[in-house]
Amino acid sequence: MTSSKQISLSEIKTLSLSILSHVGYGRAHAAAITEMLYACQLDDCQSHGLFRLIMCAQTMLAGKVDGHALPHVAHSDNAVVKVDARGGISLLAFEKALPALVEKSRHHGIAAMAINNCFHFSALWPEVERLSAAGLAAMAMVPSHSWVAPAGGTRGSLGTNPLAFSWPRSGQDPFTFDFATSGFARGEIELYKRAGKPLPAGVAIDRDGNPTTDPQSALDGAMLTFGGYKGSALSVMIELLAGPLIDDMTSLESMEFAGGAAGAPYHGEIILAFDPVQFSNGKVAENDARAERLFADIIDQGARLPSQRRFAARARNLKRGYVEIPEALYNELLSLRDD
Amino acid sequence: MTSSKQISLSEIKTLSLSILSHVGYGRAHAAAITEMLYACQLDDCQSHGLFRLIMCAQTMLAGKVDGHALPHVAHSDNAVVKVDARGGISLLAFEKALPALVEKSRHHGIAAMAINNCFHFSALWPEVERLSAAGLAAMAMVPSHSWVAPAGGTRGSLGTNPLAFSWPRSGQDPFTFDFATSGFARGEIELYKRAGKPLPAGVAIDRDGNPTTDPQSALDGAMLTFGGYKGSALSVMIELLAGPLIDDMTSLESMEFAGGAAGAPYHGEIILAFDPVQFSNGKVAENDARAERLFADIIDQGARLPSQRRFAARARNLKRGYVEIPEALYNELLSLRDD
Repeated sequence: MTSSKQISLSEIKTLSLSILSHVGYGRAHAAAITEMLYACQLDDCQSHGLFRLIMCAQTMLAGKVDGHALPHVAHSDNAVVKVDARGGISLLAFEKALPALVEKSRHHGIAAMAINNCFHFSALWPEVERLSAAGLAAMAMVPSHSWVAPAGGTRGSLGTNPLAFSWPRSGQDPFTFDFATSGFARGEIELYKRAGKPLPAGVAIDRDGNPTTDPQSALDGAMLTFGGYKGSALSVMIELLAGPLIDDMTSLESMEFAGGAAGAPYHGEIILAFDPVQFSNGKVAENDARAERLFADIIDQGARLPSQRRFAARARNLKRGYVEIPEALYNELLSLRDD
Repeated sequence: MTSSKQISLSEIKTLSLSILSHVGYGRAHAAAITEMLYACQLDDCQSHGLFRLIMCAQTMLAGKVDGHALPHVAHSDNAVVKVDARGGISLLAFEKALPALVEKSRHHGIAAMAINNCFHFSALWPEVERLSAAGLAAMAMVPSHSWVAPAGGTRGSLGTNPLAFSWPRSGQDPFTFDFATSGFARGEIELYKRAGKPLPAGVAIDRDGNPTTDPQSALDGAMLTFGGYKGSALSVMIELLAGPLIDDMTSLESMEFAGGAAGAPYHGEIILAFDPVQFSNGKVAENDARAERLFADIIDQGARLPSQRRFAARARNLKRGYVEIPEALYNELLSLRDD
């Protein structure tokens, strides 16, 4: 049994800031990364919370990330915000370009943010929830490394390529999902490996293209997409929109660029935002009611909306004032700071 | 064994036009519908080819569609083209608004078309391929009727909610997919029923929420989404973007509106278009090469790109000058015209 450690909400931030600063991230990057880790840890997203500080440290150790890079937001009159992360972590670039994306969405009805030249390790739901908090619907996509075989294939060509979406709901938590188009998230496989647990069947193949449930064989071989050929097609779409469309790397290229080093992949990201006011000619309230009726019909039959468990964890952790992480992880984090 | 009937390429069009005219569609609608049916039949998409003339006739018989409706394209300075189909079939509205969508995409970098108040029965790939033929990447989504249960549910709340995507490829067929987020397309279940074949396991539940492979029980009960909770989440996203976002019906509302009548569902549609020139700052050729390398890596390992079979059918049928449809369907189509 894994023993766990209680961490107060304020300690999440101080611990994260101190580790990030110690391993070489400047103040602005450390703050942007910490906000993301805090959001995930608050919601009990163990795979994208404080656990990711290990990857942040590895990424710095690999020597390619710039912990002090100043993102550059290009001026444009069109509906596309291009932001160059200049070799830093994606999150500060997102922060810097967010006001322009919100403004462009409200002005043009639909707009996109393209982040280039960034290291990426984070969940996408906190980003789309920033947009739904501003009353916009939003979608986000990133490639990763070519760990995932296409349907009918035998080796990795595609990234884990997550798709996230958030829809604003008046006076309550948004409708949000954020899923990897691989059957499993890469981070989850790493957690299974750390826990010594076998994977479910059907999520991975080994180095020879045969099905496997061993986490290490899966990490050495390839993961499979969810949903067979449909999930595979969706994953290719994400490669194209978050890669070649925006003049950035595919997961194949990103993997080559890393050259076997551990740490966060280097590539691009695309975020789309939709303004319900413009799309509905101002009829937001009556269309919100339509959406609410759909949500109610789903819940009434005993099904869940995505993220309900996460919102429940958030409410509980805010109330009790602490989160729990595995004690072994906590000790590993302390060793990162005290190196 | 089903005997089949050869139909020359020109007869596809004359047969379709004569039936549509006979059952009550005006010239402009009949032409737009025929172009779509021709495109599908040429590619051996049996479920969305001439077979759909039966649904066009049923839709007219149900008495709600306007076979002479003139779509209205609203003027806007933003990146959203709103087109009101005014109770007609969606296809003529798409045709009328397409030039504005292409122009807005090139101007703003990203743009959307929202079709309102339309009857919809068609495949989406011909629409996204019109955009990829213009050098744009494109995505299309529609709701339908609430035939599909959400993950963990027992009854229909969602439509079959297809997602289509096309990516332009220089000098060759585009990368295109068009899949229902239900495990099966509704039209496929109808074809299984006509052929007296059982469905694969895992695509439907009966009226009591139990798994079934009987096509009629599936039609009476509910279909399931592909890919479990992820496919279900994606389907909800499509409901929201192609419904409440654009001030139009969800699949639940559309089903109620039909009041049990056969024929095409009435709702909206959303199409997104992305200009690679603007997103890549003009670096289209080098980013096309990135995409081509990904496609080559997928094909090299023996996997298929989506739509390869369709493109092969198109090449063969264009060369031989005819398509084949079941003889029973051909006779049924003749009876529609000779009623």
